[in-house]
Amino acid sequence: MITSEQNEQLTRTGPGTLMGELMRRYWIPVLDCHEIAEPDGAPVRLQILGEKLVAFRDTRGRIGVIDEFCAHRGVSLWFGRNEECGLRCPYHGWKYDISGACVELPSESSDERVMQRMQLKSYPAIEQGGAVWIYMGPPQLRPEPPALEWTLVAAEQRFVSRRLQESNYLQALEGGIDSSHVSFLHSGSLKRDPLFAGSRGNEYNLHDLKPVFEVEPFAGGLLIGARRNAAEGRYYWRITPWIMPWHTIIAPRAGHPLGAHVWVPIDDARCWAWSINYHPRRALTEAERSAMQSGAGIHVKYVPGTLVPLANKSNDYLMDRASQKSGMTYSGVEGIAMQDASLQESMGPVQERTREHLVSTDRGIVHTRRSLLAAAEANRAGKPLPGLLPSEQKVRSCAIELPADQPFTDGAKHGLFRELGTDPVSV
Amino acid sequence: MITSEQNEQLTRTGPGTLMGELMRRYWIPVLDCHEIAEPDGAPVRLQILGEKLVAFRDTRGRIGVIDEFCAHRGVSLWFGRNEECGLRCPYHGWKYDISGACVELPSESSDERVMQRMQLKSYPAIEQGGAVWIYMGPPQLRPEPPALEWTLVAAEQRFVSRRLQESNYLQALEGGIDSSHVSFLHSGSLKRDPLFAGSRGNEYNLHDLKPVFEVEPFAGGLLIGARRNAAEGRYYWRITPWIMPWHTIIAPRAGHPLGAHVWVPIDDARCWAWSINYHPRRALTEAERSAMQSGAGIHVKYVPGTLVPLANKSNDYLMDRASQKSGMTYSGVEGIAMQDASLQESMGPVQERTREHLVSTDRGIVHTRRSLLAAAEANRAGKPLPGLLPSEQKVRSCAIELPADQPFTDGAKHGLFRELGTDPVSV
Amino acid sequence: MITSEQNEQLTRTGPGTLMGELMRRYWIPVLDCHEIAEPDGAPVRLQILGEKLVAFRDTRGRIGVIDEFCAHRGVSLWFGRNEECGLRCPYHGWKYDISGACVELPSESSDERVMQRMQLKSYPAIEQGGAVWIYMGPPQLRPEPPALEWTLVAAEQRFVSRRLQESNYLQALEGGIDSSHVSFLHSGSLKRDPLFAGSRGNEYNLHDLKPVFEVEPFAGGLLIGARRNAAEGRYYWRITPWIMPWHTIIAPRAGHPLGAHVWVPIDDARCWAWSINYHPRRALTEAERSAMQSGAGIHVKYVPGTLVPLANKSNDYLMDRASQKSGMTYSGVEGIAMQDASLQESMGPVQERTREHLVSTDRGIVHTRRSLLAAAEANRAGKPLPGLLPSEQKVRSCAIELPADQPFTDGAKHGLFRELGTDPVSV
Repeated sequence: MITSEQNEQLTRTGPGTLMGELMRRYWIPVLDCHEIAEPDGAPVRLQILGEKLVAFRDTRGRIGVIDEFCAHRGVSLWFGRNEECGLRCPYHGWKYDISGACVELPSESSDERVMQRMQLKSYPAIEQGGAVWIYMGPPQLRPEPPALEWTLVAAEQRFVSRRLQESNYLQALEGGIDSSHVSFLHSGSLKRDPLFAGSRGNEYNLHDLKPVFEVEPFAGGLLIGARRNAAEGRYYWRITPWIMPWHTIIAPRAGHPLGAHVWVPIDDARCWAWSINYHPRRALTEAERSAMQSGAGIHVKYVPGTLVPLANKSNDYLMDRASQKSGMTYSGVEGIAMQDASLQESMGPVQERTREHLVSTDRGIVHTRRSLLAAAEANRAGKPLPGLLPSEQKVRSCAIELPADQPFTDGAKHGLFRELGTDPVSV
Repeated sequence: MITSEQNEQLTRTGPGTLMGELMRRYWIPVLDCHEIAEPDGAPVRLQILGEKLVAFRDTRGRIGVIDEFCAHRGVSLWFGRNEECGLRCPYHGWKYDISGACVELPSESSDERVMQRMQLKSYPAIEQGGAVWIYMGPPQLRPEPPALEWTLVAAEQRFVSRRLQESNYLQALEGGIDSSHVSFLHSGSLKRDPLFAGSRGNEYNLHDLKPVFEVEPFAGGLLIGARRNAAEGRYYWRITPWIMPWHTIIAPRAGHPLGAHVWVPIDDARCWAWSINYHPRRALTEAERSAMQSGAGIHVKYVPGTLVPLANKSNDYLMDRASQKSGMTYSGVEGIAMQDASLQESMGPVQERTREHLVSTDRGIVHTRRSLLAAAEANRAGKPLPGLLPSEQKVRSCAIELPADQPFTDGAKHGLFRELGTDPVSV
Repeated sequence: MITSEQNEQLTRTGPGTLMGELMRRYWIPVLDCHEIAEPDGAPVRLQILGEKLVAFRDTRGRIGVIDEFCAHRGVSLWFGRNEECGLRCPYHGWKYDISGACVELPSESSDERVMQRMQLKSYPAIEQGGAVWIYMGPPQLRPEPPALEWTLVAAEQRFVSRRLQESNYLQALEGGIDSSHVSFLHSGSLKRDPLFAGSRGNEYNLHDLKPVFEVEPFAGGLLIGARRNAAEGRYYWRITPWIMPWHTIIAPRAGHPLGAHVWVPIDDARCWAWSINYHPRRALTEAERSAMQSGAGIHVKYVPGTLVPLANKSNDYLMDRASQKSGMTYSGVEGIAMQDASLQESMGPVQERTREHLVSTDRGIVHTRRSLLAAAEANRAGKPLPGLLPSEQKVRSCAIELPADQPFTDGAKHGLFRELGTDPVSV
């Protein structure tokens, strides 16, 4: 349980907010590259941390992410013409380049000083790991490009999807670091889902319902270890790295790919749930990729032509009570991603955390909130932040059995901090 | 016309409001029993007096009505598993029994003291008259179960329906005690509706458009008598009992069943309109029940799978100007229930009563408001309230012709306070 | 760029607002006559300047525009019975005549003094130019009927349409006086639209992208002249009269009819866009009328049964990127009216003018805002207003080529102030 004020601090992300300022210090994934693939193709509207923006790829293939609205009369540049290395406002043909600079005023004499007044807000954009990332913070503090492992592997080793979640980002993030619910909410799917099935770890998940959490800081954020009983005298560990400010890496099962998420606020009532599978050593198989495309694992099926999940709030997530009754699904909702999202959205747009009652399995959540607030305060105080350096993002999840007396920070180290090109450590 | 402050007092019903506290002293019908018929069946979401709740019937057939949201992390228990005498949160399997007690913490050690902290709000529920009723007031003040006549007759003597009304409850209630509008709004339907037609009273309704209202208090609320001219020297009386805080009983026509309504706030902009027909002496006929099921009388047709009337605000109530022009319907809206609801909803979510102009035929409305406010003040002062005792709810409507010089309180007494199993007094 | 306070003053139009009071001094077109054609036909709901009203044509053919809600209990009179020279409330049969007077209280004794208390707000209504106009200002200040040229020509010389625009009126009005955007936004349509094509002026529009604006006051408002290069030593002038408070007249092209608009606030987030074509000398041809009916020129196609454009915000205006790419349309939106409306709506319900950057081609906009504010202040001070007299509304747009050294106020005078029955002056 936290105070109403703390809840506000943790969940508000617009310009000038405590958490918003922190998040703006990191690179933010905002689009799949394929959404903006063609030079001079259709511009894309997006809203990130409450700011309305438009993205376009210019004639030379460079990506611009600028204010959605023309400096002149406030028209949405989504209606604009993407041509000749700039986005033209459709009202009077004013053109902006990828830096937001007004480079043509065809309806006026193109006076340099006038054009300078028309400068639009813009954010640097890069492509990495199949996603377009932008940096919305102070220019002089811009960090190195993101170096999360999934962003570094070859395209054939990775599958990236994105869906709309109708809740504050923090509800989603707090689900992502909570191994405890897997034994319940996902119990039906663990055995059936082609991207989860076949792991010995699943049995541990289903048989020990009371995981013990141990949380350790590392340079990029937290290592959240959930320990369950395995064979006599041994523990099954699932270790979820949380990397500042919203990245989580999910421990793999058997030979399946690793999972990863990013939870990016659109505004304070909605977020983008990025879901990534990747294998650090090999290409994904056809079967894996096909399962992902059809919504298995942490991915979803969509309302055609949108990023809205097919099972969503407006249709009660296609609740199936018979499937719930039989245990095929625990909650009656199909699919691991929507099992999570349905519950997280049911908490309301922004969960009232003054009414919650946290317990021992919420230790990861407690530490994460504390770390977010501490980093946000450090940011305001001009102090260093965790997770900004590529080296601090070099971490992987792992699932491992260890002797009962061995701490995971010792026994799982080789599974967590491991070179690209190596197999995951998993059970 | 009342002040803005009085209108607020009368129409606000959430926790801690003047009227909300009064209403919580009475049993509240919240569901049809058939909506929650099966032990371990699907839980049902409901909102009553602004509070979000979930109802379920447990393995042993007992009904629980508890806070919709899990004490742990605020997930909606509507997604829960109803099994083994409790409702399990789908997130971590926490189980609550019908009293809201947390009886299992499978993701934690089930420590008694921890479980006690997880106690959810719950309200006692009973089944009576085909409906589930809850009591939301102080436990020590819980009254006897409801004893309105329609709740006491055998199931075959009763038909109960429920529909969503998109207005504050008071607009609906004020329609329910207003006999005056029948001569206008329902004039076309009086003659045609199979559950109204054939009564001599209809002729009086249609010929004397200026009823005189006399209002008399009784132990449960008010007796609202509307007097119209009948044969020379005689009056036709329709007497509508209003029983605290929201029950009305409609005078029967000829041999038709009696009618009754309950107007229960969902929140302050919507209410449940309960519509009941019953005959205190005999089973309903097949023809009657079939008419009711197809939306005749005070019942409606629905948007399939919902409790939303088929004719509703979003489709202008299927307004038929030709029917209005011909007089088949007075307002162009078909069906007695939706004739009322359409106009009540047209006043806005909460009618601005500072702009109204009440006249003599609104005497029942004026007295009812006064009684509601007086009872609410009495409640705050810890004084006794009307209509709490079963004996105070023992009243029936009647329609009767009386000599011009006989007060209805005298001449209609035998029709109003009558034993179960007797025929209604009607014309 | 204006201050937030000025933006509020210019865009708020409800009762008691600065601009709302000004607008109420003028006749307001509110309905097409055909919407309310039949005596005793269906009443029509309308909202104008934030006020909810109902219009009806009584038995004798007179139009009443009165408060939507019955004085008694607040029921919407849209459900009313239009009969016997009045509109009856469907609840208790109370009848109001076109002056808002309560003329029958059939549910009460029809006491004169009681009926006087039930007087509803009403506004005088007249029919002119195919539209119903109301006057919402102080009775003693009621002006002569509107005398805009399009309202005075014979019906066969005029085509009038109306569509919903989901933005504040000022965004629409500011588009209507901005000739500058034609060279861009409408460049694709200029050549193709049957109501625009074939004019030499189109070439000037397409070749000189930097018009020079000259704005001159006249008795009814402003003459907004946009000057472009024509043949050597000559200018092409398009002169748009803006007549207080919301009328614009569009310069014709070649032999096509003139255009006119009225932008009438529904509330502060929506307005009615009236679009009129007329020819002051001749009947419209079948081909012209047919093109207008099918949505060409300044008219639109509709969602069937509504006044909502078929291409609208909910469907991204049927954006066609291929058409944008080819230049068939400049913005990808089809049709001149929706090209404008889509961009004006994209500014948001009420444009934040504190963020705009006006330039030389916005001179007409700057002057119009100033004139609106000045007139509104004059109105508060009890001083005379422009555009109230019929003689002040006698103005027409024209398109003309003039020698470079001749001011349009001199050279175009004969085209602007011209008798009915004469041809437009156009190029």
